[in-house]
Amino acid sequence: MSALTEAFAAAEAAGIKQHRIQVGDLLFNVARFGKGRRLLLLHGWPEFWLVWRPVMERLGLEFELIAPDLRGCGDTGKPFPGPDATATADRHAGDMFGLMDALDIKRFGVVGGDLGAYVAQAMSHRAPERLEGSFYFCTPYPGLGFRYGQPSHLIEVWYQYLQQLPWAAELVGSSREACRIYFRHFLDHWSGDNPKVFSDLLEAYVDNFMKPGNIQGGFDWYLSSAPNRRLWLEGKLPPKPPINVPTRFLWGRRDPLILPNWSDRLGEYWTNYSLDFADAGHYVHAEVPDVAAREIRAFFSGLRAQSAAE
Amino acid sequence: MSALTEAFAAAEAAGIKQHRIQVGDLLFNVARFGKGRRLLLLHGWPEFWLVWRPVMERLGLEFELIAPDLRGCGDTGKPFPGPDATATADRHAGDMFGLMDALDIKRFGVVGGDLGAYVAQAMSHRAPERLEGSFYFCTPYPGLGFRYGQPSHLIEVWYQYLQQLPWAAELVGSSREACRIYFRHFLDHWSGDNPKVFSDLLEAYVDNFMKPGNIQGGFDWYLSSAPNRRLWLEGKLPPKPPINVPTRFLWGRRDPLILPNWSDRLGEYWTNYSLDFADAGHYVHAEVPDVAAREIRAFFSGLRAQSAAE
Repeated sequence: MSALTEAFAAAEAAGIKQHRIQVGDLLFNVARFGKGRRLLLLHGWPEFWLVWRPVMERLGLEFELIAPDLRGCGDTGKPFPGPDATATADRHAGDMFGLMDALDIKRFGVVGGDLGAYVAQAMSHRAPERLEGSFYFCTPYPGLGFRYGQPSHLIEVWYQYLQQLPWAAELVGSSREACRIYFRHFLDHWSGDNPKVFSDLLEAYVDNFMKPGNIQGGFDWYLSSAPNRRLWLEGKLPPKPPINVPTRFLWGRRDPLILPNWSDRLGEYWTNYSLDFADAGHYVHAEVPDVAAREIRAFFSGLRAQSAAE
Repeated sequence: MSALTEAFAAAEAAGIKQHRIQVGDLLFNVARFGKGRRLLLLHGWPEFWLVWRPVMERLGLEFELIAPDLRGCGDTGKPFPGPDATATADRHAGDMFGLMDALDIKRFGVVGGDLGAYVAQAMSHRAPERLEGSFYFCTPYPGLGFRYGQPSHLIEVWYQYLQQLPWAAELVGSSREACRIYFRHFLDHWSGDNPKVFSDLLEAYVDNFMKPGNIQGGFDWYLSSAPNRRLWLEGKLPPKPPINVPTRFLWGRRDPLILPNWSDRLGEYWTNYSLDFADAGHYVHAEVPDVAAREIRAFFSGLRAQSAAE
């Protein structure tokens, strides 16, 4: 039994069920758990639904957790065998609203970091009336500006460029060893160089990425977001209206990729938000799931109390 | 017989001999050919002495060509098994003067591009009186400035950051296939996306880089040059006096890495130079060896005539 099969079996034994749900042309894999208010959990890169397991298990008594594999990732379909430059944040947002339509869920909360944070922002621009609230971990947003590509930070963001190249997935997937070397870096380094966070799951992650198309499926995000990323670094990205969805940020204090002090411009992009920091790196949800779950619970319960009082 | 062994045998049959020469603690491999005025040929990355074969064969009647493998590269020694952050341009320059001392050669011409161009600049600052002249192909120099790391160019320079990471050589060397995928990109893409230039030598290059330590040996340059590269991009590199060595640049018009129009600031760094462009990419010496050899001959012969007239 592979490490991934074992991880899935353990999640299933804990009550987390996986479902196949058709959205447009694509068959999505969606992990679901718990009962209550609906929360859509949006994973980042290099993640898939499994990264949410610790948070899901802690929130299942009060929330219904819905954790899909995004387009190209995990066990969700890959529309093309090769590189796909159309997997933009807006397309992911359309997928997610389509998924919630298929589940007949009109309003819901959304939680995400990394790629998931891009998707949550696109959803906030597209149909804010469907979002009860949004909860973000370390968040790439246009306010990072040129800082995300400044000379001192290129040692952190080089992968966003390599992963656009047509042979990159072939290199990383050339053997299980190559795959392990590559993904171990992002799992360990972004956890504040703490190899303990993902060590038990490393082989399951390697299993996931060695599935046909999964490396390219993740890399498609970097290809698809390249034009906007360049405009953003150059300060030329056309501005969008600020987001009014009630929002909470819980930023990893030791995130080496999206530095905590770069949260200084959130107020230009969100009108109704609060910010706090967690003692974690990039993967707050995986590194300190107790803290992440407590904060998610408090935020969405607060929204309910506020909404009942109005 | 491996492709590399075949390539070496063919070079040997053409009269190019390889020598082992001790310089300090390191045993250098040096290919030599021809008789006449001495020219030191400095390869770039991802190259080794073999890249000079076409130029050597064309110039051997008038020049003695001396083409070493730089520290960490080809069949020259690697001082450390792991990453080495001390292989700076100045250290390479010291190696090269030591090598010419060992050969009892006081004054000589120097020819190089890419990493070799960094080394030639360091040699020019260190002991200009030993250089009769310098001939450069596509040349990284401080005048590139922030342009070398601007958002639109990150798709070209990401490798300079990946290659600093302690696991990068392990990834690229994880299998012959991984090695081939990686180096094929740099050979083909930098040749103006013309896969014909290196196609006959690709397997010989893979053989070279699969030799123990050779991938890391090349990557050491990126680790060693990282602090200065950052200062340079930030415009904070302490200035050095301009170089007075008579100099000629022959820049590849289609180099995607070091754009030909970035030659616009050469005059701030060289006082005595001329510039022309070749119909080639980054590897002028390998792509258009007839043109490269003709230009090298004309430049160094012109220096001799000038020197005789003085």
